[in-house]
Amino acid sequence: MMSMIRPDFALTVSCPDQKGIIAAVTHTIATGGGNILNLSQHTAVDINTFLLKTDFSVDESFDRAAFEAAFAAVAAKFKMDWKLHDKAVRTRVAILVSKTSHCLYELLLKHQDGELDCDFPVIIANHPDLASVATQFHIPFFQVDPAKGKAAYEADVQRILEDWKIDTVVLARYMQILSPEFTRRWAYQVINIHHGFLPAFMGAKPYHQAWHRGVKIIGATAHFANEDLDQGPIISQDTIQVPDTCSIAEFVQMGKDVERKVLFEALRCFLNREVFVSGGRTFLLP
Amino acid sequence: MMSMIRPDFALTVSCPDQKGIIAAVTHTIATGGGNILNLSQHTAVDINTFLLKTDFSVDESFDRAAFEAAFAAVAAKFKMDWKLHDKAVRTRVAILVSKTSHCLYELLLKHQDGELDCDFPVIIANHPDLASVATQFHIPFFQVDPAKGKAAYEADVQRILEDWKIDTVVLARYMQILSPEFTRRWAYQVINIHHGFLPAFMGAKPYHQAWHRGVKIIGATAHFANEDLDQGPIISQDTIQVPDTCSIAEFVQMGKDVERKVLFEALRCFLNREVFVSGGRTFLLP
Amino acid sequence: MMSMIRPDFALTVSCPDQKGIIAAVTHTIATGGGNILNLSQHTAVDINTFLLKTDFSVDESFDRAAFEAAFAAVAAKFKMDWKLHDKAVRTRVAILVSKTSHCLYELLLKHQDGELDCDFPVIIANHPDLASVATQFHIPFFQVDPAKGKAAYEADVQRILEDWKIDTVVLARYMQILSPEFTRRWAYQVINIHHGFLPAFMGAKPYHQAWHRGVKIIGATAHFANEDLDQGPIISQDTIQVPDTCSIAEFVQMGKDVERKVLFEALRCFLNREVFVSGGRTFLLP
Amino acid sequence: MMSMIRPDFALTVSCPDQKGIIAAVTHTIATGGGNILNLSQHTAVDINTFLLKTDFSVDESFDRAAFEAAFAAVAAKFKMDWKLHDKAVRTRVAILVSKTSHCLYELLLKHQDGELDCDFPVIIANHPDLASVATQFHIPFFQVDPAKGKAAYEADVQRILEDWKIDTVVLARYMQILSPEFTRRWAYQVINIHHGFLPAFMGAKPYHQAWHRGVKIIGATAHFANEDLDQGPIISQDTIQVPDTCSIAEFVQMGKDVERKVLFEALRCFLNREVFVSGGRTFLLP
Repeated sequence: MMSMIRPDFALTVSCPDQKGIIAAVTHTIATGGGNILNLSQHTAVDINTFLLKTDFSVDESFDRAAFEAAFAAVAAKFKMDWKLHDKAVRTRVAILVSKTSHCLYELLLKHQDGELDCDFPVIIANHPDLASVATQFHIPFFQVDPAKGKAAYEADVQRILEDWKIDTVVLARYMQILSPEFTRRWAYQVINIHHGFLPAFMGAKPYHQAWHRGVKIIGATAHFANEDLDQGPIISQDTIQVPDTCSIAEFVQMGKDVERKVLFEALRCFLNREVFVSGGRTFLLP
Repeated sequence: MMSMIRPDFALTVSCPDQKGIIAAVTHTIATGGGNILNLSQHTAVDINTFLLKTDFSVDESFDRAAFEAAFAAVAAKFKMDWKLHDKAVRTRVAILVSKTSHCLYELLLKHQDGELDCDFPVIIANHPDLASVATQFHIPFFQVDPAKGKAAYEADVQRILEDWKIDTVVLARYMQILSPEFTRRWAYQVINIHHGFLPAFMGAKPYHQAWHRGVKIIGATAHFANEDLDQGPIISQDTIQVPDTCSIAEFVQMGKDVERKVLFEALRCFLNREVFVSGGRTFLLP
Repeated sequence: MMSMIRPDFALTVSCPDQKGIIAAVTHTIATGGGNILNLSQHTAVDINTFLLKTDFSVDESFDRAAFEAAFAAVAAKFKMDWKLHDKAVRTRVAILVSKTSHCLYELLLKHQDGELDCDFPVIIANHPDLASVATQFHIPFFQVDPAKGKAAYEADVQRILEDWKIDTVVLARYMQILSPEFTRRWAYQVINIHHGFLPAFMGAKPYHQAWHRGVKIIGATAHFANEDLDQGPIISQDTIQVPDTCSIAEFVQMGKDVERKVLFEALRCFLNREVFVSGGRTFLLP
Repeated sequence: MMSMIRPDFALTVSCPDQKGIIAAVTHTIATGGGNILNLSQHTAVDINTFLLKTDFSVDESFDRAAFEAAFAAVAAKFKMDWKLHDKAVRTRVAILVSKTSHCLYELLLKHQDGELDCDFPVIIANHPDLASVATQFHIPFFQVDPAKGKAAYEADVQRILEDWKIDTVVLARYMQILSPEFTRRWAYQVINIHHGFLPAFMGAKPYHQAWHRGVKIIGATAHFANEDLDQGPIISQDTIQVPDTCSIAEFVQMGKDVERKVLFEALRCFLNREVFVSGGRTFLLP
């Protein structure tokens, strides 16, 4: 949860667990002129991994270079992976879409309401249908043609992402499978929404699968895309009860609200630096 | 939902869809001296199947034999499967358990509070651990020994079920796989609770599977047991959000509340004649 | 739930409870050439009131005038309030807004996705802020000025509603209190969304009230507006858990998703003729 | 969430917010030989109050007296209210009941399953009805007679609580109003479950109130009892959707599951030292 005082920096840390990590981290921040606004930590006991996220504000005496030098010494001692994130630098996120608008609208409307701490410099699509939505929100819209072959097509996408200095890619019901080359290049920077409760109902037409199986609950799953289709680390999920007298079309319709909620939540947490990946799973430290 | 006037009969009907079924059914009931308290119906369009359940009270002029004769004529015309259930006759349900008590307690406590319209004449177990629970509720407890081989063991179970004139069997976290012979003999009369969100996580240790997959939600599924393990028609399901910082042991603990709720709900609906099976799926008509 | 065969008519009935109502209604429909697609009924025992809604399709032999004449005879016998709704005639709904867009967007996007069976001919506002949203969706936008006094202001609103032949009014976070004259004239045709779990937190700033009271759950309530502020019959409600470490601003933000969902759901049910009012309460017959 | 390594101590801290608190606390623990297993903190900005809870394990070098002396110096500097809780010392909780068993059973069954870190040395009742439940779980049962007048009656209760060295009192659907003297003496040590969503439906018969108001959701609230009936700081709440075709009796029945869940959750958090009270509200630091 956000505090009324806006933090200046977020610090994320991952390292083997041992005694004294929190004390060392917080002492270094306090000494450097930082005021900790919140701190979350978790020890994944089965893999002996300590995870920490802290947001802090700084006073004018704070010297980023000096702090990073001091922290590097602590990090070396504890064998930390760490990163200092300047909260004033906004993540640049590209949204990839096909024909369905509900997830795209959700991200754009939440962004308009100030609930997503990022920029959306560009929308990329393999169909022209959602161009008018991009126009409504004054965002450049690029249509890329899959008919030219996956390699050429993905090269076009890659060029746009580079031209626009994109950090992170959101697949907002984007109905194309990305190549392993692409997902490896953008490892842990591509967030996909799958319209099923993974690991059930992987692949195509999950609502059809669910309906034929006779489930009483449908769901959606946001996850990092990797080279195994619908098998990357899960970031967020949600479900709703569905009357068994519904048609498949009604599953599709009711599922939309779950999809947009889950995708928004995944991106919100990601932008807040709450999402850690360790041992093939994610851990969310709010 | 139950009405303040207790119904005397429930009538369930399944047949190919055509015009005029509801009118024919309700007219026959009204003519026979019945007062309809509620009526639910659904047409499964994909299999052209009409389903109906109605509860009605009767006055002293009602003659069951005459009504059944009159209804048989209607049923023949519409090619109905149908059944008239006397609400004064309570279903006799055997509970099968192993070592875990939470589902057993749930059924017994809800029954004690008048929320399950059945009798529990007997508890059968493959372990002695829950004998004291049976004693608390004054229910005969039979321990049957799986070590004697599945055929002999199931023959013992079958004999108890027959001796006690059991209609329906509830597997309340019963950790034995039933033979195809047994599930066929008791088709659509054995309700199992699986501690996972089916069809994900079939088979053993579903919470372990879920934890390793990194899901953010766990669930439970009540279903009719058939010869395909954990694949019978689903009756009820529920899920809860789980923090990803939980251990497997915590998944197991938190899952208990979902399991007991889902199993109770499945049995409650079943006893109220709300559960129809058609085309391998269930339809619940409240 | 909607069926795959689209119904031609909905029939709603309310009357004192007695034996044979369902049989009489369904027999009249079947005789008139109607095929019942679904039927819901409820008896409110405490006020001895029977409620029924049924959707039916008709074949070419159906004669509306003849059916209504036949049904009027049945209705007279049972003292029914009843109405036949032609499903091809779309309800004309005006949306009234102030400055907040999330409820307005929800209605317009769901409508665009075909999930609301109505027309939105006009948007009326007491502020100019949301004019651009109306433009995005090509809907005429009228700004009416409250500064001219409530009577003159409401006369303007009334004139627009009449000019555009409006049937129903939705207050989508419209921050003006309507006069008793207005709500009486539009009785059971004005749906308001209140951003609190009624009857707690009536009146202004419900999230502030909730936060100061230290609740762990916030909610929203859609209800018919009547002359008692926030006290009209409730149509739909929902709630979400909120961490107690949230600020009021976060309550406001998180509450938006509940508000838009509850308002959409209320309007959807209303348009489907599912909402009955009896004894100061609503009953929803799906 | 509990860790796989059991903590030896919990430390709770409340003080005016300022820079460096977390660093000071964690440094003192690390220096004293403690290993922090988890740490939660929150700053209530509106009342400038910093709250912290941390669980830590210790090695054999840990000297409790030395640690407390060292921490007292830190505490004085930051004007802390603080307490060190030995996790090996179990809280002694008395359960007060009337005639309804579902909340009592929930606490006893969860305790039996190892999910409540306390002892239940005694059950006190103003009716004999639940004596047999106490017997099932081998817990002494005291029936105290309200007919002798509130002062004499509460003196009896007080004597039992003292005799059995009770720390905390849980009112598990105990249908007696406690005197201001009693609640003041046991300030923030009496947890009550109210069968309504507070602040709506205070006082008697909340389900009746809710039904007559036509709500679509019912709830329950666990709170600290104080001298203002049903107005003490809220600890936990939950709600469920209820069909509006339910009777009051069905509200009562369905509400039971919410009540038992909310009361268990409140007690579980309380025993884990997660519940802070500040400015008339509670804050839960998991």
